[in-house]
Amino acid sequence: MIAAPRGRARARLIAVARGDGAPDLVIEGARVFCAFTREWLEGDVAVADGLVAGIGSYEGGERIDARGQHLVPGFIDAHMHVESSKLTPSEFARAVLPHGTTAIVCDPHEVANVLGSDGVHWMLDASEGLPLSVFVMAPSCVPASGFESPRRELTTGDMEAILRRRRALGVAEMMNFPGVIAGDPEVLAKLEVRGASHADGHAPGVTGSALDAYAAAGIRSDHEATTYEEALAKRRRGIWVLIREASNARNLRALLPLVAEYGPDFCAFCTDDREPDFLLRDGHINQMCRVAVAEGIAPEDALLMATLNPARAHGLEWFGAIAPGYRADLVLLGDLERFSPTLVLSAGRVAAREGRAEPFEAPPVPAYVLQTVRSAPVTAADLALDPGGASRVRVIEIVPEQLITLVREVEPARLNGHVVADPERDLAKIAVIERHHATGRVGRGLVTGFGLRRGAFASTVAHDAHNLIVVGTTDADMLACAARLQEIGGGCVVADGGSVAGELALPVAGLLSGEPVEAVVARLEELHALLASFGVAIAAPFMTLSFLALSVIPALKITDRGLVDVERFELVPLGVGAGRASTPDG
Amino acid sequence: MIAAPRGRARARLIAVARGDGAPDLVIEGARVFCAFTREWLEGDVAVADGLVAGIGSYEGGERIDARGQHLVPGFIDAHMHVESSKLTPSEFARAVLPHGTTAIVCDPHEVANVLGSDGVHWMLDASEGLPLSVFVMAPSCVPASGFESPRRELTTGDMEAILRRRRALGVAEMMNFPGVIAGDPEVLAKLEVRGASHADGHAPGVTGSALDAYAAAGIRSDHEATTYEEALAKRRRGIWVLIREASNARNLRALLPLVAEYGPDFCAFCTDDREPDFLLRDGHINQMCRVAVAEGIAPEDALLMATLNPARAHGLEWFGAIAPGYRADLVLLGDLERFSPTLVLSAGRVAAREGRAEPFEAPPVPAYVLQTVRSAPVTAADLALDPGGASRVRVIEIVPEQLITLVREVEPARLNGHVVADPERDLAKIAVIERHHATGRVGRGLVTGFGLRRGAFASTVAHDAHNLIVVGTTDADMLACAARLQEIGGGCVVADGGSVAGELALPVAGLLSGEPVEAVVARLEELHALLASFGVAIAAPFMTLSFLALSVIPALKITDRGLVDVERFELVPLGVGAGRASTPDG
Repeated sequence: MIAAPRGRARARLIAVARGDGAPDLVIEGARVFCAFTREWLEGDVAVADGLVAGIGSYEGGERIDARGQHLVPGFIDAHMHVESSKLTPSEFARAVLPHGTTAIVCDPHEVANVLGSDGVHWMLDASEGLPLSVFVMAPSCVPASGFESPRRELTTGDMEAILRRRRALGVAEMMNFPGVIAGDPEVLAKLEVRGASHADGHAPGVTGSALDAYAAAGIRSDHEATTYEEALAKRRRGIWVLIREASNARNLRALLPLVAEYGPDFCAFCTDDREPDFLLRDGHINQMCRVAVAEGIAPEDALLMATLNPARAHGLEWFGAIAPGYRADLVLLGDLERFSPTLVLSAGRVAAREGRAEPFEAPPVPAYVLQTVRSAPVTAADLALDPGGASRVRVIEIVPEQLITLVREVEPARLNGHVVADPERDLAKIAVIERHHATGRVGRGLVTGFGLRRGAFASTVAHDAHNLIVVGTTDADMLACAARLQEIGGGCVVADGGSVAGELALPVAGLLSGEPVEAVVARLEELHALLASFGVAIAAPFMTLSFLALSVIPALKITDRGLVDVERFELVPLGVGAGRASTPDG
Repeated sequence: MIAAPRGRARARLIAVARGDGAPDLVIEGARVFCAFTREWLEGDVAVADGLVAGIGSYEGGERIDARGQHLVPGFIDAHMHVESSKLTPSEFARAVLPHGTTAIVCDPHEVANVLGSDGVHWMLDASEGLPLSVFVMAPSCVPASGFESPRRELTTGDMEAILRRRRALGVAEMMNFPGVIAGDPEVLAKLEVRGASHADGHAPGVTGSALDAYAAAGIRSDHEATTYEEALAKRRRGIWVLIREASNARNLRALLPLVAEYGPDFCAFCTDDREPDFLLRDGHINQMCRVAVAEGIAPEDALLMATLNPARAHGLEWFGAIAPGYRADLVLLGDLERFSPTLVLSAGRVAAREGRAEPFEAPPVPAYVLQTVRSAPVTAADLALDPGGASRVRVIEIVPEQLITLVREVEPARLNGHVVADPERDLAKIAVIERHHATGRVGRGLVTGFGLRRGAFASTVAHDAHNLIVVGTTDADMLACAARLQEIGGGCVVADGGSVAGELALPVAGLLSGEPVEAVVARLEELHALLASFGVAIAAPFMTLSFLALSVIPALKITDRGLVDVERFELVPLGVGAGRASTPDG
């Protein structure tokens, strides 16, 4: 899918390989990782026109002295969402290149929820010409469910159009695994979309004959395995095990025994959702190599899962190895423990050095991805909680460091007939305000687990539809948050005493900053500190908040359409026994 | 490249996998090979619409009791020429299915030399609907060199057209490795032909920077390595090592240490050129598994190189493994030593049982592939050898069981000023008669090494252009052979006393019989016995003869254009010092 060099460019590469032309660059004296034999070769590596010409001895060209170092292929992330970094593609590149990542396979379904197919086309445009190779999968599940309200549904037609583009590979994670297993024709149609080379999966906890059914649909990978047994079951069915180390799902250590037992084939590393602080502090795919080796995996096996294996999983030809004709995405490592690159080359050009990305020009951010927050004016009446005559109400209960929630039933505090927040009992009000079409639709409920004792906080990052989610102890603070997010085009906001106390603007689709990772992390940590002073004890309150809107992970979630009982897959009222539940169509 | 099941067919497969529909077939109780983990799984294998639905426990469907047996994926030949079997595709299928081969990747360059692109299209047509999956690579080297005269040259346009067809994969073995390494634009253009997913290589003995150059051209495989060192050098450059066990090049034992040392990845089995007797007596890819295991390779590693690895080398999705969605090409083995299938399924249907292929209908042979021998009438004058006044002449010297020849210089016997055969000294006359366009062009020379003491023998199988090659002790016998081959449309003929003494008709392109393998072998052995009674001592005289015309293997060869000094890559006269050599254009 990537244009190979043709004609004269190919002839020049061959001449350099043959020894009849000077290379552009020679990396001298390193031990060179051979992904095809799991060994280290001696020799200088010649680069011409961004490709590896050969390993040997060369005349001419710029020289890099790499004696005493290890030269390995650039790292490839087999599955991830750039949006989780809160960075634009160019800032994301600046954040991960110093860690040795030179290619990613991303599913831009967050921007797709906000901007439709325009979001995906922007992701492709915004990553054009970067020193990071950005491959895109066509989002298959927008919206994540009928309970969610993205800007619009992404159709198979949108997917086909995306898949006509260069760097677009296949069908992004098919999260609707119940639909696949049930053989739903509309779901299967997405897997059969024209132009897709393969389809990624997403099948948490699916095993046995259900897993056979999922695999029989043609799904080729999965990144949701959390146990050795689950990962083994998937690998046995020919499903690539994309071992995940996300901010909110750290599965690496649990899955390494599969690698130890069966070898690294059909395993590749991925980060799925990694928050900016994780990227800044610990790194990216190199962090997975570091952990794997610390856990006893051979460095060569770790490197395979970080380089050639993700390339093979996605059919990325000429990526992931150091050999003639391969892309000169190269990483110099001083050791095989820390995996901290001293130098990173992308297509033969220095992209990062000693932990710092080299400057490059980023494409400007077009107007159409900005100012995406279009919510109707909200008043206190829109946040009013009516239990419908019931004495007890459903409360979303956060489970620390997990995406699932529990359902708690409580007798709530009331004021003038309405249910209100009760900070003493850690009961906060929560609302999701539709923000794509200013419909004024607001879903309302109660949440426990944040520990919020005063004020409110809100975000336009709210999986997957990314409506405006706000949690608070007072309506005034909640309304202040919502109003501010409308003003700044989205982001994260904290309010107290009826006015804004802190904010991180995310003007790109309401999801991404235009700032470097350091600035984003600093601002986010200020907000975390502020919230901690309000009593919030959990580690990543904005991330936790963002997943409370994801209607496909149990047990009780909230969207702009109301409270969703994910296990029964239906909307439920606030009050227990206070009326019939309804489906998204009901 | 193979249409996956869509819509209802896919939904049915999923339902069967899920347990909600009866499979067509269940193979019960076997140990099932898992190519993804190199282990044996317990469970019944369900098949629906020719695909594997899952491994588990199923209700309904036809049952095959496989207790105590091993179920493995059907074997795949990673590189071969069907024509070497002298069988049509359907008879080839009948010959190899009992040995467990269910898919081949073939380069039909022999029929392409005789019939142009029509030959390739016929190969695709003639293999449509067989219980053997026949994948085709677009021949890249027709003619093999400018010294040879095929029916016509195959152009990049022909290759593009071939590559538009279903089951056509990529560029067939690029034999012109000097042209590739030199960066010849016409040669590189063939590697860049539109529609090719990858390019197979052919680089005998190429190592070092020349091998880097060959790899830098984008070549992805090679089947010519004869030593561990050569194979390792190729694998280190990301070139798939297609381990060959051909009739005339048995490299398997020499290359198995590579597998023992580095594992089976990037290695796959292939047969290249396998004569009908080898197929009949010893088998096909299963013979390679047998030898590999006898040599100490783990059966699981041998199986990988016989199944999933050739599929991966060629990007054959859903081939080479037993898992949901994979093609139900399945082989039952009683043991992992003999690799003699008790049952072979192709797309879920019984294709062979206990060594015998099940009957199936073969497509009829169309008229345009018959009667391809169009040679001008030949007289004794056309066979006359003129040394041009030199006292000594060049003689092609056969090296037993090798494709290379040596050059010997002798003082020949003479009669009436012409050089003649001298059976006492094992000097026979040899001629190559152009047979595609009746040009009357005849190349003439002497050969030693057959031991022929009387008569003559001839064939229209003469690599790669497949003109009519004849060797003999008398002109009369040589002319009788040539005339008979014209009459029967090609084949192998023996003459004695001025008339035909035995023959094997190969009416399809002058290369292939329409008969079953047993009949072809029997007829060929009659001819071998006849030739043995004429003094011929070498093992496979017709095969040896056929390679004397291949102008790209050292040292001295003969085509319709004359004697070819392959090392100097020029035509040379019979007489030593008898005139200037000339290039093909000279």
